[in-house]
Amino acid sequence: MPVTTPQRGRLITLEGGEGAGKSTLLRGLEAHLRAQGVDLVVTREPGGTTVGEAVRGVVLDAANNELCAEAELLLMFASRAQLVRQVIEPALAAGRWVLCDRFTDASFAYQGGGRGQPVERIEALEAWAALALKPDITLLLDLPVSTGRARAAGRGEADRIEVEGDSFFERVRGAYRDRAAAEPARFRLLDATSTPDVVLGQAIQGVSGLLAGVGS
Amino acid sequence: MPVTTPQRGRLITLEGGEGAGKSTLLRGLEAHLRAQGVDLVVTREPGGTTVGEAVRGVVLDAANNELCAEAELLLMFASRAQLVRQVIEPALAAGRWVLCDRFTDASFAYQGGGRGQPVERIEALEAWAALALKPDITLLLDLPVSTGRARAAGRGEADRIEVEGDSFFERVRGAYRDRAAAEPARFRLLDATSTPDVVLGQAIQGVSGLLAGVGS
Repeated sequence: MPVTTPQRGRLITLEGGEGAGKSTLLRGLEAHLRAQGVDLVVTREPGGTTVGEAVRGVVLDAANNELCAEAELLLMFASRAQLVRQVIEPALAAGRWVLCDRFTDASFAYQGGGRGQPVERIEALEAWAALALKPDITLLLDLPVSTGRARAAGRGEADRIEVEGDSFFERVRGAYRDRAAAEPARFRLLDATSTPDVVLGQAIQGVSGLLAGVGS
Repeated sequence: MPVTTPQRGRLITLEGGEGAGKSTLLRGLEAHLRAQGVDLVVTREPGGTTVGEAVRGVVLDAANNELCAEAELLLMFASRAQLVRQVIEPALAAGRWVLCDRFTDASFAYQGGGRGQPVERIEALEAWAALALKPDITLLLDLPVSTGRARAAGRGEADRIEVEGDSFFERVRGAYRDRAAAEPARFRLLDATSTPDVVLGQAIQGVSGLLAGVGS
């Protein structure tokens, strides 16, 4: 019998700031893709592996308020290096799709824009630690910082990143928007001030081009 | 009154493979330096800070046997970035000395020699994550792999790195010795097959040049 190599899967990433509705969109998009017959792996950053979830605990623990920007960047890429090799790349190679809650763009936004780590440093890490893996589609949930923070305020205790000030989140948003502008073919900029249904509709439209041929 | 800037402190690092007697030497050298009037900070890698000790737990946990070489390297430098900024550099700037159980040479030996991570990658991380900080003196405890492993065998449960095979530790030893040969002014190669007293005597001799003027 002939050995058939499965068509490589697709990587879709969700990005956005605090209170943008990322978790809600993730659930809706996951349901949509599965309904379309997509063999889907859903994961998140930082985390997604045993090692990555342990790293996530260190990075987000509000008690680690002395964590320096360089260590934060390295921890994010440690989690990512593990996730790419253990979960994402094997899934894509097997023809499965991956829906990931945050990916490398988040490091450019948070550790780059937010913390001021140089873009060249992040690009170098992306090249070797993240295998230069680029999402097929990145859905960026964009909304004014004040709106997002007001939404996120009711969620209980803030983690180590959520306690940052507005200017930090303005820089994060700016870095995200700059990346979206620089790579229009990959990014879908979604208006996160809309209702969840409208945002999901935009997202479904955004990934529709990838779905041609799936389940046929 | 004139503001006096303290003379910058000295950084002494201890390196070596399994069963080389590093912990015993550390205690002896610490006692010697304090007796000479050195204002000393003793720390270790990975670890030495709250963040670093959490990272140490992830790196050494034998259950994390799927940890990839890239993530291991990034975690080591995350711990180091934090240690350098939070502990080592402030101590040196205040005129205190630092005695550190492993430092960047260990990444060249374990993640470079042992795991095959490229030297250029480690050098780039050293430059920005570890502030290009070089020890004044590095004491390398050298002994045959079989001797060290036989000594270490009685110590209870092996961590994630200690479970590696002999060929791994041969590469680690080779990388350490190569670095010592390349930087003879910084390294002191100590024969770790000698008795603890003899090794301590070699180490005290090795750092004696730094002590001129201390306590006077």
